[in-house]
Amino acid sequence: MQYDQTMDAKDTFMRTALFRDLGGESLARLAEGSRRLEVARGEHLFLEGDEGRDIFVLAEGGIRLYKLAEDGQETTVKLVEPFEAFAEIAFFDDGRYPVSAVATKYSVVQAVSGTAFQALLGDRVFRGEFISTLIGRIRYLSQRIHYLTAYDVEQRFFRFLYEQCGASDTCKLEIPKKEIAAAIGTVPETLSRLILRLRERGDIEWKGSRIRVRDGLWEEQGYPRGGGAE
Amino acid sequence: MQYDQTMDAKDTFMRTALFRDLGGESLARLAEGSRRLEVARGEHLFLEGDEGRDIFVLAEGGIRLYKLAEDGQETTVKLVEPFEAFAEIAFFDDGRYPVSAVATKYSVVQAVSGTAFQALLGDRVFRGEFISTLIGRIRYLSQRIHYLTAYDVEQRFFRFLYEQCGASDTCKLEIPKKEIAAAIGTVPETLSRLILRLRERGDIEWKGSRIRVRDGLWEEQGYPRGGGAE
Repeated sequence: MQYDQTMDAKDTFMRTALFRDLGGESLARLAEGSRRLEVARGEHLFLEGDEGRDIFVLAEGGIRLYKLAEDGQETTVKLVEPFEAFAEIAFFDDGRYPVSAVATKYSVVQAVSGTAFQALLGDRVFRGEFISTLIGRIRYLSQRIHYLTAYDVEQRFFRFLYEQCGASDTCKLEIPKKEIAAAIGTVPETLSRLILRLRERGDIEWKGSRIRVRDGLWEEQGYPRGGGAE
Repeated sequence: MQYDQTMDAKDTFMRTALFRDLGGESLARLAEGSRRLEVARGEHLFLEGDEGRDIFVLAEGGIRLYKLAEDGQETTVKLVEPFEAFAEIAFFDDGRYPVSAVATKYSVVQAVSGTAFQALLGDRVFRGEFISTLIGRIRYLSQRIHYLTAYDVEQRFFRFLYEQCGASDTCKLEIPKKEIAAAIGTVPETLSRLILRLRERGDIEWKGSRIRVRDGLWEEQGYPRGGGAE
């Protein structure tokens, strides 16, 4: 069977936040300037203090980034998940890896050599797209923080309900609670506590996928009656 | 009196999130490639669809960014505050301003010409620092979102208290409530509701700047007794 490495690489980069908004041409050039590496469980990709020659994206498996304290104690800095970029800071920083990277299981990584990446950044179109990706990401994250800060979890829950069903008495939510929690920017445990509190107060009833909202609650929450999608 | 425009520009850029982590040399070059503009209240800096030649930073005053709908209706996209950059996306995007910018009061803006900025980005050191600034910002915002999502406002409040006073019975907080709210990533109204709830439950007493924490609460919250700063 023919195995197309460049296609694999392009696919990996398209699924990585740092690169996914690049245009097709830029993605192709990035893929061409990269190579695929396999790392066995327990094998190191690089050690803290090594010269940072590459930027990596994890395509498959798991990578643990850690630092060594003076007493030899390891501190895990991050567990890298598939389609996350790592070691990109070292590249733009002082050129040395600030952490060590070890595979927690058999892993496949896509490595872009710093030289290739610098050459790409020398190109005005690639550079523009890459910087615009970063700025777009900053904008998105800032808006998300504003949303998380300006509204508490109860307000976010009712906003979500309103978006799904409008200001109606009942709402059918065929979405797992885990996903509802993620959508409103919280963890399942906090959502469960919130639901319990709202039930105890008599604000909502929740049976199966059906939520009943107490009379007058939408008005108190400041939503126009009958607005939104039914 | 001698008026040093470059010093003013450098100072403005140093206070702007997008540029503040640049090195001194890069900041100076950015300042040299920029010019200071005064805009009267109601005056436009640019119109939607204009060719985006500059990146701006507001040094003083207020700028409203808006879009025109087909029916002539204006939608405010953003109120720019001092030391915010704007129109930087247009520059990396299709080269046209996607919004119009009008001064809501007398304003002073620092404009970096796109040509000057492209030339700076052609320099490997400037480019590296600029990109590293953007990546650092993404990292910070992602961590903040993780913090806001993983812990609810009550947990964030106790974490804050723990950081200030450790797991002790009383804590003296000489910080305005508004700043406490900002530190734990919420708005003053939500903090007030939380305090009310904790008081009703008998978890805390709050008199003046002194907070008393109920016996056994730190253990329930999972904090080691006597840990943290006293």
